[in-house]
Amino acid sequence: MVEINNNHMKEKLYIEKIQNGTVIDHIHAGFALSVLKILRLEGKEGKLITVGINVKSNTSSSKKKDIVKVENTILDQKQINQIALISPKCKVSFIKNYDIVKKFVVKIPNMIVGIIKCPNEKCITNVDREPVLTEFKILGEEPLKVACDYCERIVYKNEILRTSF
Amino acid sequence: MVEINNNHMKEKLYIEKIQNGTVIDHIHAGFALSVLKILRLEGKEGKLITVGINVKSNTSSSKKKDIVKVENTILDQKQINQIALISPKCKVSFIKNYDIVKKFVVKIPNMIVGIIKCPNEKCITNVDREPVLTEFKILGEEPLKVACDYCERIVYKNEILRTSF
Repeated sequence: MVEINNNHMKEKLYIEKIQNGTVIDHIHAGFALSVLKILRLEGKEGKLITVGINVKSNTSSSKKKDIVKVENTILDQKQINQIALISPKCKVSFIKNYDIVKKFVVKIPNMIVGIIKCPNEKCITNVDREPVLTEFKILGEEPLKVACDYCERIVYKNEILRTSF
Repeated sequence: MVEINNNHMKEKLYIEKIQNGTVIDHIHAGFALSVLKILRLEGKEGKLITVGINVKSNTSSSKKKDIVKVENTILDQKQINQIALISPKCKVSFIKNYDIVKKFVVKIPNMIVGIIKCPNEKCITNVDREPVLTEFKILGEEPLKVACDYCERIVYKNEILRTSF
């Protein structure tokens, strides 16, 4: 991270861009660290990561958004679906040699299969005897409200953040 | 976070600077998220936070460093000492109206009093009957190695990160 000059230029500052990797923009304000958890990134991996939390946004209704940039990382579909759950409509760009090679808006899938845990310890999906993929129905997107297909437990975003990632 | 222009200008990008708050620079590469934990910042507080992880550094022997900037936050001495433990010699600047009003290098204190927990559950500092402040002696700074004054347990950085913050 390099300052533009030594005169403490007001308001703006340079940081490195990602040469190859992924930019996740328009994350709900305050949820960037949850996105890092989903990607299992702690910093010790050695990858360049830049994070903006509660940065100004002209398009968000809250006037704030988060943004995460990660070098040498391409998201898989499971991670994209997990991010969609906690921050629907955020924008993902895959970057190659500083250019955007793919850009899309994430979307909550109709059925949530195998990407979050059921917080009900007694749910069959949490019993070790046989492996069962979790399945949830979407009852509401914002705020997020889902129902376990097996035990019918209703689960909200905060509980998912605490127990799944 | 605003791109300089729409032509995907190479390598650099603008982000907002902190108007009032704290910049913690030259954090050991990979430890920025631990600093956020020490400051008890998750993003939901609404404060502008920018984080760079594994950014290029000309002065660090590993050629990488982390940096954290937090709006409207001034560190207290306990937090400064905690940050010194996990990242000795990092540089803290307090910012007022975009100018640096105070700048200093953190330093591990000779005695570690009341800023980390002893991981030994049976240590008197973890027994509820009477409140006792933890005390540790420094045996090594990099890598960090400390000894509990009460139970003599030797504790390393990773264990401190797991149990104290």
